[in-house]
Amino acid sequence: MGGPDVANGIGSLSLNASETKGKTITCKAAVAYGPGEPFVVEQVLVHPPQKMEVRIKILYTSICHTDLSAWQGENEAQRAYPRIFGHEASGIVESVGEGVNDIEEGDMVVPIFNGECGECSYCKSEQTNMCERFGVNPMKKVMDSDGASRFSTIDGTTIFHFLNTSTFAEYTVVDSACVVKLHHDLTHSLKKLTLISCGVSTGVGAAWNTANVHSGSTVAVFGLGAVGLAVAEGARARGASKIVGVDINPDKFTKAQAMGITDFINPSDEEKPVHERIREITGGGVHYSFECTGNLHVLREAFLSAHQGWGLTVILGIHSTPKLLPIHPMELFDGRRIVGSVFGGFKGRSQLPHFARECIHGTVKLDNFITHELPFEEINKAFDLLTAGKSLRCILNL
Amino acid sequence: MGGPDVANGIGSLSLNASETKGKTITCKAAVAYGPGEPFVVEQVLVHPPQKMEVRIKILYTSICHTDLSAWQGENEAQRAYPRIFGHEASGIVESVGEGVNDIEEGDMVVPIFNGECGECSYCKSEQTNMCERFGVNPMKKVMDSDGASRFSTIDGTTIFHFLNTSTFAEYTVVDSACVVKLHHDLTHSLKKLTLISCGVSTGVGAAWNTANVHSGSTVAVFGLGAVGLAVAEGARARGASKIVGVDINPDKFTKAQAMGITDFINPSDEEKPVHERIREITGGGVHYSFECTGNLHVLREAFLSAHQGWGLTVILGIHSTPKLLPIHPMELFDGRRIVGSVFGGFKGRSQLPHFARECIHGTVKLDNFITHELPFEEINKAFDLLTAGKSLRCILNL
Repeated sequence: MGGPDVANGIGSLSLNASETKGKTITCKAAVAYGPGEPFVVEQVLVHPPQKMEVRIKILYTSICHTDLSAWQGENEAQRAYPRIFGHEASGIVESVGEGVNDIEEGDMVVPIFNGECGECSYCKSEQTNMCERFGVNPMKKVMDSDGASRFSTIDGTTIFHFLNTSTFAEYTVVDSACVVKLHHDLTHSLKKLTLISCGVSTGVGAAWNTANVHSGSTVAVFGLGAVGLAVAEGARARGASKIVGVDINPDKFTKAQAMGITDFINPSDEEKPVHERIREITGGGVHYSFECTGNLHVLREAFLSAHQGWGLTVILGIHSTPKLLPIHPMELFDGRRIVGSVFGGFKGRSQLPHFARECIHGTVKLDNFITHELPFEEINKAFDLLTAGKSLRCILNL
Repeated sequence: MGGPDVANGIGSLSLNASETKGKTITCKAAVAYGPGEPFVVEQVLVHPPQKMEVRIKILYTSICHTDLSAWQGENEAQRAYPRIFGHEASGIVESVGEGVNDIEEGDMVVPIFNGECGECSYCKSEQTNMCERFGVNPMKKVMDSDGASRFSTIDGTTIFHFLNTSTFAEYTVVDSACVVKLHHDLTHSLKKLTLISCGVSTGVGAAWNTANVHSGSTVAVFGLGAVGLAVAEGARARGASKIVGVDINPDKFTKAQAMGITDFINPSDEEKPVHERIREITGGGVHYSFECTGNLHVLREAFLSAHQGWGLTVILGIHSTPKLLPIHPMELFDGRRIVGSVFGGFKGRSQLPHFARECIHGTVKLDNFITHELPFEEINKAFDLLTAGKSLRCILNL
């Protein structure tokens, strides 16, 4: 062991673990007390992991748009406060609960919001990365095993969990189904591997697993945030011949150029609908289009940008309104297909360890996604950067 | 040659062809003069086939729901009168136009409404059975080559074509891209092979080509008309373990039982939504559901009947209203997929000759689909039978 990441807390942990195991830990967390209210970085209590659970010392966390929209309380039914948000992170195992045999104290891990229990019919199927117990559930706010929270304020008020993970804290407790153990030779890269906890896996996986982008194919990516650029990165790695990036923010184009995008379209500059422009430059439409904005109008443009007969549209964006797909049933007779992609189709525990190696070996360039780095205490500033469209990923150091 | 089919006109044709070749033929046709108006069976003029066209002596034709809805003029934009409808038929080539080298006088053929030119990018792709020039186009009412019709009334009024085929006539002219030549050893089975011209290919092909139903899988079929039952027949042939048939007409169940349906659901008899009932009896939902009604409410039930994670819904029904897919974008995140299927995904000229043999060898039992047989002159009665839900297929003998 050695290098800068180790100095940043990893080395010293092994000394503390024996002192904290089985006990409640008092540590820092960024607590949200209401929709859109600034995070309060304060001391909280993190209770010990129960059966099949893991307590992780978070070393790095970053912010994804799903945190942003959940924090803003966009979906009322999903509101629960006080709460610890955050689901993209990396860290080291502090202790494990009863029955956890494949993860141990000191393991380098990334938490995953889309778990893999390994036992349910979905986990046993090769056709899906859903999980019956630990799949994505924004309504869930407590642990699965006993319906209780492992967090509370200093005065004993329950603090709710978020997306199986709650990584905006020095320590968090997650079910072992939501923990991916990384090979020890990746220790030095833990900071950048934070990104495979959500955004990069979601985008690259959508290109690789969901769409299965092929060499020489044409691709359109709608929305050039971290997920959209990860799609482009995945398509570039697969040898796509043309990757059209679409965004209304021209500032994104410079960054995008370094990440595989070959053609840019700013809808604000176009007189005709974007799909017509894309059909012109790709001989009738792309093989694969990716919707990464959560906007229904954009979704329709993405759908119509795909080539008749074989074009596939992959939805990654979160559409919070109860509106219907802007597609007529008969339009499916033109041979265009549309599917959703969650966590890039990756089965986290089975497939992320290999994906982590591919990233570190350079197949996917993680460094390009890290635009900012801040101390954890400046989490509100990191949210401002994301809201303003200025950052792709801001790593918060704990 | 020999047998009842030959006596029924095939044998004598070779005597007449030399007299008619290159000339306008006067023969019987069922002409529609307005939406929903009874067909007038009268003498019409059928002009000779032009470059790359084929004139077929129709021996058998039947009626599909697409004829019914087009005849009723459900879609105003598609109306064109007088017109000769009909697209499911079989016959013998009377003569061919310039440039037709792979079809000749006397060949046993079925016309196809979804042609295969063999030259366009779609025809050259293995991923689709679309065709750029001769695909399904309900707006088309004349020949592709010169924009003219090959039909007229005795007094010279143009009669329009329908779906590349217009088979409600003793003779029709179609582009060679819309003609499938059958092997001569199938001559005796020409009558029943009429059904592969549309309905049976559409249903069986949706199960085989579009969904790729696998042995042991579970299937739900919504709408037990000829197409729905052909889906069931295709699923049965593939070894599906459970095939749930859904229809509000209980009269269909007896017939359906003989054709692979293992479980019946009449939505009128159910207190809970059909998809809940199907999930109960199939362990969470079917692998494949097929929507064969053209009703949006049914489409949603079909979608929700498919299992999360891997279930596929195939749309075959024609939805004439401009409404949107009754599916929320986020519902695609549950891993259910939905696709359209046209002509069962068959490339007609390439794949139907083999499919015809499979049918005649008993893989698919065509006889079960023929519930009635009438002389061509009684076409209005045949339409009544279909409208009343009393027939699956009524063969009209010309």
